[in-house]
Amino acid sequence: MNLANLSTADIIEGIFSNNVAFVSKAITLIESTKPAHRIIANEIIAGCISKKSDTIRIGVTGVPGAGKSTFIEQFGSMLTELGKKVAVLTVDPSSSRTKGSILGDKTRMQELVKDSNAYIRPSASGTSLGGVTRKTRESIVVLEAAGFDTIIIETIGVGQSETAVHSMVDFFLLLKIAGAGDELQGIKRGIIEMADSIVINKADGNNIQNAAQAKMEFTRALHMFPPKENGWSPEVLTCSALENKGLEAIWKLISNYCETMKETGYFTKNRQNQNEKWLLQYLEQELLSKFYLNPKTKKLLPLLKKEVIKGETSPFSAAEKLLALLTID
Amino acid sequence: MNLANLSTADIIEGIFSNNVAFVSKAITLIESTKPAHRIIANEIIAGCISKKSDTIRIGVTGVPGAGKSTFIEQFGSMLTELGKKVAVLTVDPSSSRTKGSILGDKTRMQELVKDSNAYIRPSASGTSLGGVTRKTRESIVVLEAAGFDTIIIETIGVGQSETAVHSMVDFFLLLKIAGAGDELQGIKRGIIEMADSIVINKADGNNIQNAAQAKMEFTRALHMFPPKENGWSPEVLTCSALENKGLEAIWKLISNYCETMKETGYFTKNRQNQNEKWLLQYLEQELLSKFYLNPKTKKLLPLLKKEVIKGETSPFSAAEKLLALLTID
Repeated sequence: MNLANLSTADIIEGIFSNNVAFVSKAITLIESTKPAHRIIANEIIAGCISKKSDTIRIGVTGVPGAGKSTFIEQFGSMLTELGKKVAVLTVDPSSSRTKGSILGDKTRMQELVKDSNAYIRPSASGTSLGGVTRKTRESIVVLEAAGFDTIIIETIGVGQSETAVHSMVDFFLLLKIAGAGDELQGIKRGIIEMADSIVINKADGNNIQNAAQAKMEFTRALHMFPPKENGWSPEVLTCSALENKGLEAIWKLISNYCETMKETGYFTKNRQNQNEKWLLQYLEQELLSKFYLNPKTKKLLPLLKKEVIKGETSPFSAAEKLLALLTID
Repeated sequence: MNLANLSTADIIEGIFSNNVAFVSKAITLIESTKPAHRIIANEIIAGCISKKSDTIRIGVTGVPGAGKSTFIEQFGSMLTELGKKVAVLTVDPSSSRTKGSILGDKTRMQELVKDSNAYIRPSASGTSLGGVTRKTRESIVVLEAAGFDTIIIETIGVGQSETAVHSMVDFFLLLKIAGAGDELQGIKRGIIEMADSIVINKADGNNIQNAAQAKMEFTRALHMFPPKENGWSPEVLTCSALENKGLEAIWKLISNYCETMKETGYFTKNRQNQNEKWLLQYLEQELLSKFYLNPKTKKLLPLLKKEVIKGETSPFSAAEKLLALLTID
């Protein structure tokens, strides 16, 4: 099939009929930086966004070595067996630079990639976290319009990407392994606070005892945090993705979470808040970039910077000079 | 003296001749929110900023009870005896709300306030941290033009105000007291990382042993941090502000710091970086506020927000609609 000469309407129709070739085409357009592609991408998103469906977006994070790939592979396969349609996306702004970290996403999940009810999209090579997260959010719209009801968003456990992923999912899962004590070392407090569940992976073989110990320590640690706004108490579970054990309990917990949060109205409210937050964030980011690209700014700012650096002008009056020259209208 | 009908040039001249009545008048204008006052304030700052002098700006932070007032009183008095001209400012955005915390700044430092070589200015009642820090930064310009060579900026050990103060001083001092062990409890890691020196106060009476112990623990803790960009290794000292002990050593350390940093060029570079950072921060803050106050934004944004919240429009295309309507020129 040649997708090159398709109209936007054709692509949207293809997405609605769950044709993954069209889904991939749409995501490629979303990932493109060409202005012409952006226009089409925006039309596609506008066409897809009103298609309402009952979906769950799950964020999975964990440091390298926690077994995220194996976990998502097994967890995703279990879900497709339950009749779910599963899409996996990755947010990893570093992948384009380091190459190594998640090279060959598709080959990591060899079973899931062959599953006709699953769709895996390797991380877009992004220049900025903002760019990558925007693409991911827009891809979610397309995937849900195509009938995928379970969206798994994986993130490498570094820096700001967890916060970005947390702000686009319904349920945030932190994957850990049990080590030799010191379970809480090397974990950013912020990530524990965001987690709706901590899952200790690799609870198998000689490691079962360690995993149980880790579960206890994390449970204790979670009690130290104030209760979540939505009333949910994060739970610690163990599993062995390798031996396919404990995954049903995780799904049961997530389903239970969704049910409870839909009853209280938090589920919908949270998605609405997320949308509003993204609107303002993106707005401000674009506004500032417009400002810095304006010819007047480009001409005057370096001069004012020099004056300020030399101590000839106060930072505040320099800023006011620039703002007085510019009008927003 | 009636200062009401003075010209801006008169005020600047008064500042240059180290007349504190004029300094106070200028700071009052800086603190005013009236547009007419802002214009005069900007003129005063423009007149003062080019007056170069050899000054040191010291930030002092510490939780309530650490003895900041007594410390600054004794430390400041020692400095005026050494021939320094000392000005004390406070950054505490909460003071206007809670009233209690630093009520009566002047009465706290009863000796220093009577000292003709010292100037104490209680915290402006600020509505926002941004507003308070701006006023403080601008006041520094006036005080230095008036011949004050040692500016002490006190901050209450809560929240973001430390970061703001850290970004306007040359040397950042964290004041602590020795308690019953657990010295590192309740301290924000970020503050320790910012400190150029930790001073254990109240090393007197029964507390001398505790203070020595605390000194050891903090020294150990400081070793856990990577070296500072400027090559400085923060030192832990003890003192008793009450008994006027150990203050010379602190001043020696600060002088030593300044000397070293002036030799390496870091002192000047740091002030330049601080100025540049303030320029951009203030610029972006004002730009966004201009944007949100624009009539088009005020009309369109609520409508777009509704669409986004309902899921009818993607956050990104809504933002683009708004940005397309507005031009920055």
